[in-house]
Amino acid sequence: MQIKVAGCSGFCFGVKRAINIAKKALLKDKPKIYSLGPIIHNPQVVEELFKKGLQVVSSLKGIKNGIVIISSHGAPIEVLEEIKKRKINLIDATCPFVKYAQNIVRRLKREGYRIIIMGDKAHPEVKALKSLTLPSPINGRGKKIGIVSQTTQNKENYIKEIGKILEEDFSEIRIFNTICNDTLRRQLATRALLKDCDLIIVIGGKNSANTRRLWQICKESGVGSFHIETESELKREWFAGKRRVGITSGASTPDSMVENVRERIKKFNKGTL
Amino acid sequence: MQIKVAGCSGFCFGVKRAINIAKKALLKDKPKIYSLGPIIHNPQVVEELFKKGLQVVSSLKGIKNGIVIISSHGAPIEVLEEIKKRKINLIDATCPFVKYAQNIVRRLKREGYRIIIMGDKAHPEVKALKSLTLPSPINGRGKKIGIVSQTTQNKENYIKEIGKILEEDFSEIRIFNTICNDTLRRQLATRALLKDCDLIIVIGGKNSANTRRLWQICKESGVGSFHIETESELKREWFAGKRRVGITSGASTPDSMVENVRERIKKFNKGTL
Repeated sequence: MQIKVAGCSGFCFGVKRAINIAKKALLKDKPKIYSLGPIIHNPQVVEELFKKGLQVVSSLKGIKNGIVIISSHGAPIEVLEEIKKRKINLIDATCPFVKYAQNIVRRLKREGYRIIIMGDKAHPEVKALKSLTLPSPINGRGKKIGIVSQTTQNKENYIKEIGKILEEDFSEIRIFNTICNDTLRRQLATRALLKDCDLIIVIGGKNSANTRRLWQICKESGVGSFHIETESELKREWFAGKRRVGITSGASTPDSMVENVRERIKKFNKGTL
Repeated sequence: MQIKVAGCSGFCFGVKRAINIAKKALLKDKPKIYSLGPIIHNPQVVEELFKKGLQVVSSLKGIKNGIVIISSHGAPIEVLEEIKKRKINLIDATCPFVKYAQNIVRRLKREGYRIIIMGDKAHPEVKALKSLTLPSPINGRGKKIGIVSQTTQNKENYIKEIGKILEEDFSEIRIFNTICNDTLRRQLATRALLKDCDLIIVIGGKNSANTRRLWQICKESGVGSFHIETESELKREWFAGKRRVGITSGASTPDSMVENVRERIKKFNKGTL
Protein backbone atom coordinates (compact mmCIF):
# COMPACT_ATOMS: atom_id res chain seq x y z
CA MET A 1 0.00 0.00 0.00
CA GLN A 2 1.24 3.44 -0.93
CA ILE A 3 0.53 6.54 1.16
CA LYS A 4 0.45 9.91 -0.55
CA VAL A 5 0.12 13.28 1.20
CA ALA A 6 -1.63 16.13 -0.68
CA GLY A 7 0.64 18.69 -2.32
CA CYS A 8 -0.77 21.38 -0.07
CA SER A 9 -0.93 20.73 3.66
CA GLY A 10 -0.03 22.27 7.02
CA PHE A 11 -1.27 25.56 8.45
CA CYS A 12 -2.34 28.21 5.99
CA PHE A 13 -1.00 31.75 6.20
CA GLY A 14 -3.93 33.10 8.24
CA VAL A 15 -3.91 30.24 10.75
CA LYS A 16 -0.15 30.41 11.24
CA ARG A 17 -0.44 34.14 11.77
CA ALA A 18 -3.29 33.83 14.30
CA ILE A 19 -1.43 31.19 16.31
CA ASN A 20 1.72 33.30 16.35
CA ILE A 21 -0.24 36.34 17.52
CA ALA A 22 -1.76 34.29 20.35
CA LYS A 23 1.57 32.73 21.37
CA LYS A 24 3.25 36.13 21.42
CA ALA A 25 0.49 37.52 23.66
CA LEU A 26 0.79 34.51 25.95
CA LEU A 27 4.54 35.02 26.36
CA LYS A 28 4.17 38.44 27.90
CA ASP A 29 3.29 39.27 31.49
CA LYS A 30 -0.07 37.67 31.56
CA PRO A 31 -3.23 39.41 32.35
CA LYS A 32 -6.16 37.19 31.45
CA ILE A 33 -6.16 36.38 27.75
CA TYR A 34 -9.38 35.34 26.07
CA SER A 35 -10.12 34.24 22.58
CA LEU A 36 -13.58 35.11 21.33
CA GLY A 37 -14.58 31.72 19.96
CA PRO A 38 -11.87 29.19 19.06
CA ILE A 39 -9.00 31.14 17.48
CA ILE A 40 -8.83 28.55 14.69
CA HIS A 41 -11.11 25.58 13.99
CA ASN A 42 -8.84 22.84 15.27
CA PRO A 43 -9.83 21.56 18.74
CA GLN A 44 -6.41 19.97 19.41
CA VAL A 45 -4.49 23.17 18.71
CA VAL A 46 -7.03 25.18 20.72
CA GLU A 47 -6.55 22.74 23.61
CA GLU A 48 -2.78 23.22 23.45
CA LEU A 49 -3.18 27.00 23.55
CA PHE A 50 -5.62 26.65 26.44
CA LYS A 51 -2.90 24.87 28.41
CA LYS A 52 -0.69 27.90 27.76
CA GLY A 53 -3.37 30.22 29.13
CA LEU A 54 -5.67 31.12 26.27
CA GLN A 55 -9.25 30.84 27.41
CA VAL A 56 -12.02 30.49 24.85
CA VAL A 57 -15.17 32.51 25.57
CA SER A 58 -18.32 32.70 23.51
CA SER A 59 -19.19 36.28 24.45
CA LEU A 60 -17.83 39.32 26.24
CA LYS A 61 -20.10 38.69 29.22
CA GLY A 62 -18.23 38.84 32.49
CA ILE A 63 -14.97 40.06 30.93
CA LYS A 64 -13.76 43.07 32.87
CA ASN A 65 -10.06 43.24 32.24
CA GLY A 66 -7.46 41.32 30.33
CA ILE A 67 -7.03 40.96 26.59
CA VAL A 68 -9.52 39.69 24.05
CA ILE A 69 -8.16 38.10 20.88
CA ILE A 70 -10.40 38.22 17.80
CA SER A 71 -10.19 34.83 16.09
CA SER A 72 -8.88 34.26 12.57
CA HIS A 73 -12.49 34.26 11.33
CA GLY A 74 -13.18 37.82 12.50
CA ALA A 75 -15.94 39.08 14.77
CA PRO A 76 -19.26 40.85 14.21
CA ILE A 77 -19.16 44.63 14.14
CA GLU A 78 -21.39 44.93 17.23
CA VAL A 79 -18.90 42.87 19.26
CA LEU A 80 -15.99 45.02 18.09
CA GLU A 81 -17.98 48.12 19.00
CA GLU A 82 -18.72 46.78 22.45
CA ILE A 83 -15.03 46.01 23.02
CA LYS A 84 -14.22 49.58 22.05
CA LYS A 85 -16.97 51.00 24.23
CA ARG A 86 -15.94 48.95 27.23
CA LYS A 87 -12.30 49.79 26.62
CA ILE A 88 -11.28 46.15 26.69
CA ASN A 89 -7.80 45.49 25.29
CA LEU A 90 -8.07 43.90 21.89
CA ILE A 91 -5.68 41.90 19.73
CA ASP A 92 -6.97 41.29 16.24
CA ALA A 93 -6.00 37.93 14.71
CA THR A 94 -8.52 38.17 11.85
CA CYS A 95 -7.04 36.58 8.72
CA PRO A 96 -6.05 39.28 6.20
CA PHE A 97 -8.02 37.44 3.48
CA VAL A 98 -11.11 37.62 5.68
CA LYS A 99 -10.38 41.32 6.22
CA TYR A 100 -10.25 41.76 2.45
CA ALA A 101 -13.74 40.24 2.16
CA GLN A 102 -14.93 42.46 5.03
CA ASN A 103 -13.63 45.57 3.29
CA ILE A 104 -15.44 44.64 0.09
CA VAL A 105 -18.70 44.18 2.01
CA ARG A 106 -18.21 47.58 3.66
CA ARG A 107 -17.70 49.21 0.27
CA LEU A 108 -20.71 47.49 -1.29
CA LYS A 109 -22.84 48.60 1.65
CA ARG A 110 -21.63 52.17 1.32
CA GLU A 111 -22.41 52.15 -2.41
CA GLY A 112 -25.96 50.89 -1.92
CA TYR A 113 -25.71 47.32 -3.16
CA ARG A 114 -27.93 44.51 -1.95
CA ILE A 115 -25.29 42.16 -0.54
CA ILE A 116 -25.30 38.39 -0.87
CA ILE A 117 -22.77 36.28 1.05
CA MET A 118 -22.28 32.70 -0.10
CA GLY A 119 -21.27 30.57 2.86
CA ASP A 120 -22.32 28.72 6.00
CA LYS A 121 -24.81 30.90 7.86
CA ALA A 122 -23.65 29.61 11.24
CA HIS A 123 -19.92 30.08 10.62
CA PRO A 124 -18.23 32.94 12.54
CA GLU A 125 -16.63 34.33 9.36
CA VAL A 126 -20.03 34.59 7.67
CA LYS A 127 -21.67 36.00 10.79
CA ALA A 128 -19.01 38.71 10.94
CA LEU A 129 -19.44 39.49 7.23
CA LYS A 130 -23.20 39.60 7.62
CA SER A 131 -22.99 42.02 10.54
CA LEU A 132 -21.43 44.54 8.13
CA THR A 133 -24.45 44.38 5.80
CA LEU A 134 -26.98 45.36 8.46
CA PRO A 135 -29.40 47.02 8.53
CA SER A 136 -30.65 45.41 5.31
CA PRO A 137 -32.29 47.78 2.85
CA ILE A 138 -36.07 47.96 3.39
CA ASN A 139 -36.60 46.79 -0.16
CA GLY A 140 -34.67 43.55 0.05
CA ARG A 141 -34.87 42.90 -3.67
CA GLY A 142 -32.51 45.66 -4.79
CA LYS A 143 -31.43 45.66 -8.41
CA LYS A 144 -27.78 46.43 -7.70
CA ILE A 145 -26.40 43.25 -6.23
CA GLY A 146 -22.96 42.66 -4.73
CA ILE A 147 -21.80 39.10 -4.07
CA VAL A 148 -18.94 37.82 -1.93
CA SER A 149 -18.17 34.36 -0.67
CA GLN A 150 -16.81 32.87 2.50
CA THR A 151 -13.02 32.68 2.02
CA THR A 152 -13.13 28.88 2.26
CA GLN A 153 -15.92 28.40 -0.28
CA ASN A 154 -15.72 25.87 -3.10
CA LYS A 155 -15.50 27.86 -6.35
CA GLU A 156 -17.76 25.47 -8.27
CA ASN A 157 -20.53 25.88 -5.71
CA TYR A 158 -20.01 29.62 -5.72
CA ILE A 159 -20.41 29.81 -9.50
CA LYS A 160 -23.46 27.56 -9.43
CA GLU A 161 -25.20 29.81 -6.92
CA ILE A 162 -24.27 32.93 -8.89
CA GLY A 163 -25.90 31.34 -11.93
CA LYS A 164 -29.22 31.37 -10.09
CA ILE A 165 -28.90 35.05 -9.17
CA LEU A 166 -28.13 35.98 -12.79
CA GLU A 167 -31.59 34.76 -13.73
CA GLU A 168 -33.18 37.32 -11.43
CA ASP A 169 -34.11 40.80 -12.54
CA PHE A 170 -31.02 42.99 -11.94
CA SER A 171 -29.42 46.16 -13.19
CA GLU A 172 -25.91 45.27 -12.01
CA ILE A 173 -24.29 42.28 -10.38
CA ARG A 174 -20.83 42.65 -8.93
CA ILE A 175 -19.08 39.43 -8.01
CA PHE A 176 -15.93 39.34 -5.93
CA ASN A 177 -13.71 36.32 -5.77
CA THR A 178 -13.01 36.29 -2.05
CA ILE A 179 -12.07 32.63 -1.94
CA CYS A 180 -8.51 32.60 -0.59
CA ASN A 181 -5.68 31.08 -2.60
CA ASP A 182 -4.92 28.53 0.07
CA THR A 183 -8.47 27.18 -0.20
CA LEU A 184 -8.15 26.90 -3.98
CA ARG A 185 -4.74 25.19 -3.76
CA ARG A 186 -5.89 22.72 -1.10
CA GLN A 187 -8.99 21.82 -3.12
CA LEU A 188 -6.90 21.34 -6.26
CA ALA A 189 -4.40 19.16 -4.37
CA THR A 190 -7.27 17.06 -3.02
CA ARG A 191 -8.75 16.62 -6.49
CA ALA A 192 -5.33 15.52 -7.74
CA LEU A 193 -5.18 12.86 -4.98
CA LEU A 194 -8.63 11.61 -5.91
CA LYS A 195 -7.38 10.78 -9.39
CA ASP A 196 -5.05 8.02 -8.25
CA CYS A 197 -6.07 6.97 -4.76
CA ASP A 198 -8.69 4.46 -3.69
CA LEU A 199 -9.12 5.92 -0.20
CA ILE A 200 -8.72 9.44 1.17
CA ILE A 201 -8.23 10.42 4.80
CA VAL A 202 -9.28 14.04 5.43
CA ILE A 203 -7.74 15.51 8.60
CA GLY A 204 -9.04 18.61 10.33
CA GLY A 205 -11.44 20.06 12.87
CA LYS A 206 -14.99 18.76 12.56
CA ASN A 207 -15.95 22.44 12.95
CA SER A 208 -13.57 23.55 10.21
CA ALA A 209 -15.42 24.84 7.13
CA ASN A 210 -12.53 24.38 4.72
CA THR A 211 -11.88 20.82 5.97
CA ARG A 212 -15.53 19.93 5.59
CA ARG A 213 -15.43 21.23 2.01
CA LEU A 214 -12.42 19.04 1.24
CA TRP A 215 -14.38 16.07 2.55
CA GLN A 216 -17.40 17.13 0.49
CA ILE A 217 -15.24 17.08 -2.65
CA CYS A 218 -14.08 13.56 -1.76
CA LYS A 219 -17.62 12.34 -1.12
CA GLU A 220 -18.85 13.75 -4.42
CA SER A 221 -16.05 11.96 -6.28
CA GLY A 222 -17.25 8.52 -5.23
CA VAL A 223 -13.80 7.57 -3.86
CA GLY A 224 -14.09 6.29 -0.28
CA SER A 225 -13.06 8.83 2.37
CA PHE A 226 -13.11 9.51 6.12
CA HIS A 227 -12.91 12.79 8.02
CA ILE A 228 -10.90 12.57 11.25
CA GLU A 229 -9.37 15.02 13.69
CA THR A 230 -6.60 12.80 15.08
CA GLU A 231 -4.90 9.48 14.34
CA SER A 232 -6.79 7.85 17.20
CA GLU A 233 -9.93 7.78 15.04
CA LEU A 234 -8.29 5.64 12.32
CA LYS A 235 -9.60 2.08 11.99
CA ARG A 236 -7.51 -0.75 10.60
CA GLU A 237 -10.39 -2.19 8.53
CA TRP A 238 -10.64 0.99 6.42
CA PHE A 239 -7.38 0.07 4.74
CA ALA A 240 -8.03 -3.59 3.93
CA GLY A 241 -7.34 -4.19 0.23
CA LYS A 242 -6.51 -0.54 -0.49
CA ARG A 243 -3.60 0.11 -2.80
CA ARG A 244 -3.10 3.82 -2.57
CA VAL A 245 -4.23 5.97 0.35
CA GLY A 246 -4.26 9.77 0.09
CA ILE A 247 -4.03 12.15 3.03
CA THR A 248 -5.36 15.67 2.78
CA SER A 249 -5.85 18.21 5.55
CA GLY A 250 -7.56 21.48 6.33
CA ALA A 251 -5.92 24.88 6.74
CA SER A 252 -5.88 24.61 10.55
CA THR A 253 -4.39 21.11 10.76
CA PRO A 254 -0.80 21.02 12.03
CA ASP A 255 1.84 19.19 9.97
CA SER A 256 2.54 17.07 13.05
CA MET A 257 -1.01 15.67 12.90
CA VAL A 258 -0.57 14.74 9.25
CA GLU A 259 2.65 12.97 10.25
CA ASN A 260 0.93 11.11 13.12
CA VAL A 261 -1.78 9.90 10.78
CA ARG A 262 0.73 8.77 8.18
CA GLU A 263 2.76 6.87 10.79
CA ARG A 264 -0.26 5.05 12.14
CA ILE A 265 -1.42 4.03 8.65
CA LYS A 266 2.11 2.73 7.97
CA LYS A 267 1.92 0.63 11.10
CA PHE A 268 -1.46 -0.79 10.07
CA ASN A 269 0.12 -1.69 6.75
CA LYS A 270 3.14 -3.35 8.29
CA GLY A 271 0.89 -5.18 10.69
CA THR A 272 2.71 -3.75 13.69
CA LEU A 273 -0.52 -2.23 15.03
CA MET B 1 -57.58 30.14 -38.83
CA GLN B 2 -56.91 32.61 -36.03
CA ILE B 3 -54.38 35.42 -36.29
CA LYS B 4 -52.78 36.75 -33.12
CA VAL B 5 -50.46 39.76 -32.92
CA ALA B 6 -47.78 39.77 -30.18
CA GLY B 7 -48.57 41.83 -27.07
CA CYS B 8 -45.64 44.10 -27.83
CA SER B 9 -45.27 45.52 -31.33
CA GLY B 10 -44.68 48.77 -33.18
CA PHE B 11 -41.69 51.09 -32.89
CA CYS B 12 -39.76 51.03 -29.64
CA PHE B 13 -39.00 54.22 -27.77
CA GLY B 14 -35.52 54.68 -29.28
CA VAL B 15 -36.67 54.07 -32.85
CA LYS B 16 -39.65 56.41 -32.53
CA ARG B 17 -37.34 59.06 -31.10
CA ALA B 18 -34.75 58.67 -33.87
CA ILE B 19 -37.39 58.92 -36.61
CA ASN B 20 -38.90 62.01 -34.99
CA ILE B 21 -35.48 63.63 -34.74
CA ALA B 22 -34.86 62.95 -38.43
CA LYS B 23 -38.30 64.17 -39.51
CA LYS B 24 -37.91 67.37 -37.53
CA ALA B 25 -34.54 68.05 -39.15
CA LEU B 26 -36.00 67.36 -42.59
CA LEU B 27 -38.83 69.86 -42.03
CA LYS B 28 -36.49 72.79 -41.63
CA ASP B 29 -34.77 74.76 -44.39
CA LYS B 30 -32.81 71.94 -45.83
CA PRO B 31 -29.12 71.91 -46.14
CA LYS B 32 -27.98 68.41 -47.02
CA ILE B 33 -28.94 65.92 -44.32
CA TYR B 34 -27.04 62.67 -43.99
CA SER B 35 -27.54 59.71 -41.75
CA LEU B 36 -24.38 57.84 -40.84
CA GLY B 37 -25.54 54.32 -41.63
CA PRO B 38 -29.28 53.58 -41.71
CA ILE B 39 -30.91 55.56 -38.90
CA ILE B 40 -32.83 52.44 -37.86
CA HIS B 41 -32.59 48.89 -39.21
CA ASN B 42 -35.74 48.90 -41.32
CA PRO B 43 -35.06 49.33 -45.06
CA GLN B 44 -38.65 50.39 -45.85
CA VAL B 45 -38.68 53.18 -43.27
CA VAL B 46 -35.20 54.26 -44.35
CA GLU B 47 -36.44 54.37 -47.96
CA GLU B 48 -39.36 56.60 -46.94
CA LEU B 49 -37.01 58.98 -45.13
CA PHE B 50 -34.73 58.98 -48.15
CA LYS B 51 -37.63 60.22 -50.27
CA LYS B 52 -37.99 63.07 -47.78
CA GLY B 53 -34.31 63.95 -48.21
CA LEU B 54 -32.35 61.86 -45.70
CA GLN B 55 -29.31 60.41 -47.43
CA VAL B 56 -27.57 57.37 -45.93
CA VAL B 57 -23.77 57.49 -46.03
CA SER B 58 -21.36 54.88 -44.74
CA SER B 59 -18.59 57.34 -43.82
CA LEU B 60 -17.85 61.06 -43.52
CA LYS B 61 -15.84 60.98 -46.75
CA GLY B 62 -16.82 63.76 -49.08
CA ILE B 63 -19.12 65.48 -46.58
CA LYS B 64 -18.28 69.16 -46.46
CA ASN B 65 -21.39 70.88 -45.25
CA GLY B 66 -24.86 69.92 -44.16
CA ILE B 67 -25.97 67.96 -41.12
CA VAL B 68 -24.95 64.47 -40.06
CA ILE B 69 -27.41 62.45 -37.98
CA ILE B 70 -25.94 59.76 -35.73
CA SER B 71 -28.17 56.68 -36.02
CA SER B 72 -30.10 55.13 -33.14
CA HIS B 73 -27.26 52.61 -32.72
CA GLY B 74 -24.65 55.25 -31.97
CA ALA B 75 -21.31 55.85 -33.68
CA PRO B 76 -17.69 55.02 -32.85
CA ILE B 77 -15.80 57.59 -30.82
CA GLU B 78 -13.31 58.25 -33.64
CA VAL B 79 -16.15 59.22 -35.99
CA LEU B 80 -17.63 61.58 -33.40
CA GLU B 81 -14.20 63.10 -32.91
CA GLU B 82 -13.76 63.63 -36.63
CA ILE B 83 -17.16 65.31 -36.86
CA LYS B 84 -16.09 67.65 -34.09
CA LYS B 85 -12.70 68.32 -35.65
CA ARG B 86 -14.19 69.04 -39.05
CA LYS B 87 -16.89 71.18 -37.48
CA ILE B 88 -19.66 69.28 -39.25
CA ASN B 89 -23.14 69.93 -37.82
CA LEU B 90 -24.30 66.95 -35.83
CA ILE B 91 -27.67 65.69 -34.64
CA ASP B 92 -27.43 62.79 -32.26
CA ALA B 93 -30.26 60.23 -32.54
CA THR B 94 -28.46 57.58 -30.46
CA CYS B 95 -31.01 55.66 -28.41
CA PRO B 96 -30.82 56.66 -24.72
CA PHE B 97 -30.56 52.98 -23.75
CA VAL B 98 -27.53 52.64 -26.02
CA LYS B 99 -26.11 55.80 -24.43
CA TYR B 100 -26.58 54.19 -21.02
CA ALA B 101 -24.51 51.19 -22.16
CA GLN B 102 -21.89 53.56 -23.60
CA ASN B 103 -21.64 55.44 -20.32
CA ILE B 104 -21.10 52.20 -18.43
CA VAL B 105 -18.32 51.18 -20.82
CA ARG B 106 -16.68 54.59 -20.34
CA ARG B 107 -16.81 54.20 -16.57
CA LEU B 108 -15.43 50.65 -16.66
CA LYS B 109 -12.60 51.81 -18.90
CA ARG B 110 -11.79 54.69 -16.55
CA GLU B 111 -11.73 52.32 -13.57
CA GLY B 112 -9.34 49.86 -15.22
CA TYR B 113 -11.63 46.94 -16.01
CA ARG B 114 -11.05 44.51 -18.86
CA ILE B 115 -14.27 45.04 -20.82
CA ILE B 116 -16.28 42.31 -22.50
CA ILE B 117 -19.20 43.22 -24.79
CA MET B 118 -21.67 40.47 -25.63
CA GLY B 119 -23.18 41.09 -29.04
CA ASP B 120 -22.77 40.96 -32.81
CA LYS B 121 -19.25 42.11 -33.67
CA ALA B 122 -20.37 43.61 -36.96
CA HIS B 123 -23.36 45.54 -35.56
CA PRO B 124 -22.96 49.35 -35.40
CA GLU B 125 -24.06 49.46 -31.76
CA VAL B 126 -21.36 46.99 -30.76
CA LYS B 127 -18.75 48.71 -32.93
CA ALA B 128 -19.53 52.00 -31.19
CA LEU B 129 -19.35 50.37 -27.75
CA LYS B 130 -16.09 48.67 -28.66
CA SER B 131 -14.53 51.95 -29.80
CA LEU B 132 -14.88 53.19 -26.21
CA THR B 133 -12.82 50.30 -24.84
CA LEU B 134 -9.76 51.06 -27.00
CA PRO B 135 -6.85 50.94 -26.58
CA SER B 136 -7.18 47.54 -24.91
CA PRO B 137 -4.99 47.00 -21.87
CA ILE B 138 -1.62 45.47 -22.81
CA ASN B 139 -2.36 42.58 -20.51
CA GLY B 140 -5.63 41.48 -22.06
CA ARG B 141 -6.36 38.96 -19.34
CA GLY B 142 -7.09 41.43 -16.57
CA LYS B 143 -8.55 40.08 -13.37
CA LYS B 144 -11.08 42.88 -12.98
CA ILE B 145 -13.67 42.22 -15.64
CA GLY B 146 -16.62 44.41 -16.67
CA ILE B 147 -19.35 42.95 -18.87
CA VAL B 148 -22.07 44.70 -20.86
CA SER B 149 -24.33 43.44 -23.61
CA GLN B 150 -25.76 44.80 -26.79
CA THR B 151 -29.10 46.38 -25.84
CA THR B 152 -30.97 43.89 -28.05
CA GLN B 153 -29.28 40.78 -26.66
CA ASN B 154 -31.21 37.71 -25.58
CA LYS B 155 -30.87 37.46 -21.79
CA GLU B 156 -30.52 33.67 -21.82
CA ASN B 157 -27.58 33.85 -24.20
CA TYR B 158 -26.07 36.63 -22.14
CA ILE B 159 -26.23 34.57 -18.96
CA LYS B 160 -24.84 31.50 -20.70
CA GLU B 161 -21.80 33.43 -21.89
CA ILE B 162 -21.27 34.98 -18.47
CA GLY B 163 -21.23 31.47 -17.02
CA LYS B 164 -18.12 30.72 -19.08
CA ILE B 165 -16.33 33.84 -17.88
CA LEU B 166 -17.08 32.98 -14.25
CA GLU B 167 -14.97 29.86 -14.65
CA GLU B 168 -11.92 31.97 -15.49
CA ASP B 169 -9.51 33.26 -12.89
CA PHE B 170 -10.86 36.65 -11.73
CA SER B 171 -10.75 38.98 -8.79
CA GLU B 172 -13.95 40.82 -9.66
CA ILE B 173 -16.61 40.50 -12.32
CA ARG B 174 -19.09 43.32 -12.79
CA ILE B 175 -22.08 42.54 -14.94
CA PHE B 176 -24.44 45.20 -16.22
CA ASN B 177 -27.84 44.40 -17.55
CA THR B 178 -27.85 46.70 -20.56
CA ILE B 179 -30.55 44.78 -22.41
CA CYS B 180 -33.32 47.31 -22.93
CA ASN B 181 -36.80 46.72 -21.54
CA ASP B 182 -38.36 46.80 -24.98
CA THR B 183 -36.14 43.89 -26.06
CA LEU B 184 -37.14 41.91 -22.99
CA ARG B 185 -40.86 42.64 -23.46
CA ARG B 186 -40.80 41.77 -27.16
CA GLN B 187 -38.99 38.50 -26.47
CA LEU B 188 -41.48 37.61 -23.72
CA ALA B 189 -44.42 38.45 -26.00
CA THR B 190 -42.92 36.24 -28.71
CA ARG B 191 -42.45 33.35 -26.29
CA ALA B 192 -46.09 33.74 -25.23
CA LEU B 193 -47.19 33.47 -28.89
CA LEU B 194 -45.10 30.34 -29.33
CA LYS B 195 -47.14 28.61 -26.65
CA ASP B 196 -50.36 28.57 -28.62
CA CYS B 197 -49.54 29.16 -32.28
CA ASP B 198 -48.51 26.66 -34.92
CA LEU B 199 -46.84 29.25 -37.16
CA ILE B 200 -45.10 32.54 -36.42
CA ILE B 201 -44.44 35.37 -38.86
CA VAL B 202 -41.57 37.59 -37.69
CA ILE B 203 -41.57 41.03 -39.32
CA GLY B 204 -38.58 43.36 -39.40
CA GLY B 205 -35.41 44.41 -41.21
CA LYS B 206 -33.18 41.53 -42.23
CA ASN B 207 -30.38 43.71 -40.82
CA SER B 208 -32.21 44.25 -37.52
CA ALA B 209 -30.44 42.54 -34.60
CA ASN B 210 -33.47 42.49 -32.33
CA THR B 211 -35.72 41.08 -35.09
CA ARG B 212 -33.19 38.36 -35.86
CA ARG B 213 -33.13 37.42 -32.20
CA LEU B 214 -36.92 37.13 -32.14
CA TRP B 215 -36.65 34.79 -35.13
CA GLN B 216 -33.88 32.84 -33.36
CA ILE B 217 -36.19 32.29 -30.37
CA CYS B 218 -38.89 30.99 -32.76
CA LYS B 219 -36.49 28.67 -34.53
CA GLU B 220 -35.22 27.23 -31.25
CA SER B 221 -38.79 26.52 -30.13
CA GLY B 222 -39.44 24.13 -33.01
CA VAL B 223 -42.64 25.99 -34.05
CA GLY B 224 -42.53 26.86 -37.76
CA SER B 225 -41.62 30.50 -38.49
CA PHE B 226 -40.64 32.89 -41.28
CA HIS B 227 -38.79 36.21 -41.13
CA ILE B 228 -40.09 38.81 -43.61
CA GLU B 229 -39.70 42.53 -44.13
CA THR B 230 -42.98 43.20 -45.98
CA GLU B 231 -46.26 41.46 -46.77
CA SER B 232 -45.10 40.89 -50.35
CA GLU B 233 -42.85 38.07 -49.11
CA LEU B 234 -45.77 36.06 -47.66
CA LYS B 235 -46.60 32.80 -49.43
CA ARG B 236 -50.09 31.25 -49.39
CA GLU B 237 -48.75 27.70 -48.89
CA TRP B 238 -47.17 28.62 -45.53
CA PHE B 239 -50.64 28.82 -44.01
CA ALA B 240 -52.17 25.60 -45.34
CA GLY B 241 -53.62 23.61 -42.45
CA LYS B 242 -52.49 26.12 -39.80
CA ARG B 243 -54.94 26.84 -37.02
CA ARG B 244 -53.36 29.74 -35.21
CA VAL B 245 -50.82 32.13 -36.75
CA GLY B 246 -48.82 34.52 -34.56
CA ILE B 247 -47.31 37.79 -35.76
CA THR B 248 -44.38 39.34 -33.95
CA SER B 249 -42.20 42.24 -35.05
CA GLY B 250 -38.91 43.96 -34.31
CA ALA B 251 -38.43 47.32 -32.62
CA SER B 252 -38.03 49.16 -35.93
CA THR B 253 -41.08 47.68 -37.66
CA PRO B 254 -43.93 50.16 -38.15
CA ASP B 255 -47.41 49.23 -36.92
CA SER B 256 -48.65 49.77 -40.47
CA MET B 257 -46.45 46.93 -41.69
CA VAL B 258 -47.87 44.60 -39.03
CA GLU B 259 -51.34 45.61 -40.24
CA ASN B 260 -50.46 44.97 -43.89
CA VAL B 261 -49.19 41.51 -43.02
CA ARG B 262 -52.28 40.69 -41.01
CA GLU B 263 -54.58 41.85 -43.82
CA ARG B 264 -52.83 39.76 -46.41
CA ILE B 265 -52.93 36.64 -44.22
CA LYS B 266 -56.66 37.24 -43.69
CA LYS B 267 -57.16 37.37 -47.46
CA PHE B 268 -55.23 34.11 -47.91
CA ASN B 269 -57.54 32.59 -45.34
CA LYS B 270 -60.74 33.86 -46.96
CA GLY B 271 -59.47 32.72 -50.31
CA THR B 272 -59.77 36.23 -51.75
CA LEU B 273 -56.08 36.27 -52.65
